Amino acid sequence: MISKEILPQQYKFSEKKIDVFFDADFSLIEAKLQKDKTIFITDENVYAAHKEKFSGWQSIVIKAGEQFKNQQTVDLIIQHLIDLHADRQAFIVGIGGGVITDIAGFVASIYMRGVKFAFVPTSILAMVDASIGGKNGIDVGVYKNLVGVINHPEFLLYDYSFLETLPDHEWVNGFAEIIKHACIKDSEMFQLLEKRSIAKFQQSSEDTASIIKRNVDIKYNVVANDEQETGERKLLNFGHTIGHAIENESKLPHGHAISIGMVAACHISEMINDFSKADTRRISDLLGKYELPVSFTSDKEKTWEILLHDKKKSGINMSFVVLDSIGKASIKSLPLDQLHKIFNSI
Amino acid sequence: MISKEILPQQYKFSEKKIDVFFDADFSLIEAKLQKDKTIFITDENVYAAHKEKFSGWQSIVIKAGEQFKNQQTVDLIIQHLIDLHADRQAFIVGIGGGVITDIAGFVASIYMRGVKFAFVPTSILAMVDASIGGKNGIDVGVYKNLVGVINHPEFLLYDYSFLETLPDHEWVNGFAEIIKHACIKDSEMFQLLEKRSIAKFQQSSEDTASIIKRNVDIKYNVVANDEQETGERKLLNFGHTIGHAIENESKLPHGHAISIGMVAACHISEMINDFSKADTRRISDLLGKYELPVSFTSDKEKTWEILLHDKKKSGINMSFVVLDSIGKASIKSLPLDQLHKIFNSI
Ligand SMILES: NC(=O)c1ccc[n+]([C@@H]2O[C@H](COP(=O)([O-])OP(=O)(O)OC[C@H]3O[C@@H](n4cnc5c(N)ncnc54)[C@H](O)[C@@H]3O)[C@@H](O)[C@H]2O)c1
Ligand SMILES: NC(=O)c1ccc[n+]([C@@H]2O[C@H](COP(=O)([O-])OP(=O)(O)OC[C@H]3O[C@@H](n4cnc5c(N)ncnc54)[C@H](O)[C@@H]3O)[C@@H](O)[C@H]2O)c1
Ligand SMILES: [Zn+2]
Ligand SMILES: [Zn+2]
Repeated sequence: MISKEILPQQYKFSEKKIDVFFDADFSLIEAKLQKDKTIFITDENVYAAHKEKFSGWQSIVIKAGEQFKNQQTVDLIIQHLIDLHADRQAFIVGIGGGVITDIAGFVASIYMRGVKFAFVPTSILAMVDASIGGKNGIDVGVYKNLVGVINHPEFLLYDYSFLETLPDHEWVNGFAEIIKHACIKDSEMFQLLEKRSIAKFQQSSEDTASIIKRNVDIKYNVVANDEQETGERKLLNFGHTIGHAIENESKLPHGHAISIGMVAACHISEMINDFSKADTRRISDLLGKYELPVSFTSDKEKTWEILLHDKKKSGINMSFVVLDSIGKASIKSLPLDQLHKIFNSI
Repeated sequence: MISKEILPQQYKFSEKKIDVFFDADFSLIEAKLQKDKTIFITDENVYAAHKEKFSGWQSIVIKAGEQFKNQQTVDLIIQHLIDLHADRQAFIVGIGGGVITDIAGFVASIYMRGVKFAFVPTSILAMVDASIGGKNGIDVGVYKNLVGVINHPEFLLYDYSFLETLPDHEWVNGFAEIIKHACIKDSEMFQLLEKRSIAKFQQSSEDTASIIKRNVDIKYNVVANDEQETGERKLLNFGHTIGHAIENESKLPHGHAISIGMVAACHISEMINDFSKADTRRISDLLGKYELPVSFTSDKEKTWEILLHDKKKSGINMSFVVLDSIGKASIKSLPLDQLHKIFNSI
C-alpha cells in the first residue's frame, strides 16, 4: 500500500521525458516495475551494504571500480541477461555510482537494440552528475568513455538513505562536482557551501536532499540547453581539462584532480579574463574546506604533454573554460603556446 | 571533375533525412568525404575484388562471413580506429554485404558515443534489405543480432558495378528477399520476376538497377510507416518465422531457409486465410526459377522446437504473417497448438 502518491518531476531532453523522483523511498520501484521483467545491475559494494533492498529482485552484481567499466563487464552482463531470458520487455535498473549508471545505461541501450532502463544513483557524484544528461559508456584501455551512446533513462529515483553507507572520500569526490557547479552557475550556492561542510551535510539529510536537487537542476538545465554540446555544455568542463591530465599523470581520485584543475583554471582566469585574485582565494579555501587538494603536486611538463595529447586534434588554438566571477563562466579560445606559458607560471 | 551533379533521393526516418544515391559511381565518395577523416570498413572478399576502389583511403578490412559479426570483431575495429586516431569528426563508411553494414553501423553508433557513417551495400541482400531501416548489430553466440542499436546512416551509395563480382549463390540469397517483397507488397513486381531470371538480371544492369530501386522503396515505405515495429513492419517477417528455425536446424543459407519458410507460410495461409492453392504454386514455381529450394528437408519436430524456443515469450498465441493474395499480406494471431498441427500437416 502506498500512503501518499509520489509525483515525479518531469525533465525533457529533446523529445524524451524523464521522471525524476526526488527524496523517494527505494520501495517505490515495486510500484513502478514488475519483478519478473526487471533486472537490477549494481556493484559488490552497494549490494553488500544494501542487500535487503535487492531481495526478491533479479540482480546482476559486478565488481566495483572504474577498472571494471569495460567491454569485458558488458559481455558478462549480456551473458547474465541471456541466462535470465531477458527479452525486449526487460527493464534494467542501474543502482550504484557513476560506473554502474554508465555501464547499465550502455548495456540497456544495446541489448536487443535497446530496452527500457532507469537509474537509482547511490553516490553523490552519480546523483548530481553521472546519471543526468544521457551520456553513458565504457572505457577502452586508457581511453575513458571511448565507447557508448547518448540515451536517457525512463526515470531516476533518489533515495538518500543509500548515502548512509557511502564512504567519506566518495562524498569528497562528489562535492568537487558540486563546487564546480557553484563556480560556473550559482554564486548563491557557493555562499551556502561556504557555511557548511561535508560533516554538516552528512548530519542533515534535509540539507543534503536540497543541495542535490539544486545540482540536478543545474546540470539538467545546462544539458537541456545544449544537447549537441556546442556551447554551454562545455562549461561543465571547468577544471576538467587540466584535471583530466592530472588524473592521468598522478592517478589521483577524479575529485582531487579536478579540484587542483579548478584552482589552476582560476589562475588562468586571473591572467586572461580579469578574474579577481580574491575570488581564486575563496574558491581554493572552499575546496580546502571540503577536504580537496588545491596545489599542484604532479609533474607539470608531463601533465602538459598529456593535456596536449588529449586535445591534439583541436589545432593551434584551444578552448578553455574560465570564470568571469564566482557563478559565471565562459569559454575562451587561446593559442596553445600562450596557455603553455601561463600554465608554467602558475 | 564531376560532369553531372548527382542528386540524392531523400528518405526520412522520424526526424532523420538520409540521402540515397542510386546508380552512382563509387568515386562520388571523393566528392562527399575528406580522405583524412574517412575510414572504410569492408571484408576480405570485397576488398580483394575491388582493391582499386580502396586505394588512398584508410581502410579496416575484416574477415568475411556471419561468424565474424561479433563483439571480437567490434573490439578489433575499435582498436583500429584508435590506432588511426579517429576522433568525433571521423566518418565511417561500411562497404560490403549485410554483415559489413550491420557491424559498421553498430561501431559508428558507439564509437565516441556515435560518429557519422554511410553505407555502400555490395550484395543484393544488403542493397534491398540490410542497409535500409536503421537496424544494426552483432550476434552473441547463437543469438543473432542480439546486440545493436537503431541508427540511420547519413547516406547510401549504390554502385552496381560491385555486383559484377558477387558470387551467384549470393544473388540467389538476395533474390529470396526480393521475392518476399513481391509476395507481401507488389504483385506487379511478382509478374515481372516471373518473366526474368537471375541470369537475365546479371546480363542487364538496367533491369538490376530498376528492381533494386523498387525494392528499396518497398522496404523503406514499410519501415517508415512503422518505425516502432508494432504493425506493418512485421510483414517483413513473411517466411522468416519458420525460415529462421530451418536456418538454425539445418544451417541452410538464409535465402534457402526463408524460401522453404515462405512456401510453408503459403500452405498455412491456404488453411487459415483462404489463400489460393494456385497462388502457392505460383510462388513456389517462382522460387524454384530463382534457384531456391521449396520443400521441407529438415527435421520437422526439431524445427518446431526451435521455433517455439525463439518465440517462447509471446505466450499461448503466436502472430504469424500470412498472405491474402500475391502482393498482400496480413498478420494472424493463432494458438500455438493449432499452428503446430498445421505445421505437421504441410
Ligand atoms: N555519464 C556521465 O555524464 C558522467 C558524468 C560524470 C561521471 N561519470 C562517470 O562516473 C564514474 C564515477 O562515478 P562514482 O564516483 O560514483 O564512481 P563509482 O560508481 O565507482 O562509485 C564510487 C565508489 O563508491 C561505491 N559506492 C557507490 N555508492 C555507494 C553507497 N551508497 N554505499 C557504499 N558504497 C557506494 C562504489 O562501489 C565505488 O566503490 C566514472 O566512471 C565517470 O566516468 C559519468
Ligand atoms: N540490418 C538489417 O535490417 C538486416 C536485414 C537483413 C539482413 N541483415 C544482415 O545481413 C547479413 C547478410 O547479408 P549478406 O548476405 O550481404 O551477407 P555478407 O555480408 O556475409 O555477404 C555475403 C558474401 O558475399 C560477399 N560479398 C558481398 N558483396 C560482394 C561483392 N560485391 N563481390 C564479392 N563478394 C561480395 C561477402 O564477402 C560474403 O562472403 C546478416 O548478418 C543479416 O543479419 C540485416
Ligand atoms: Zn568530473
Ligand atoms: Zn531475411
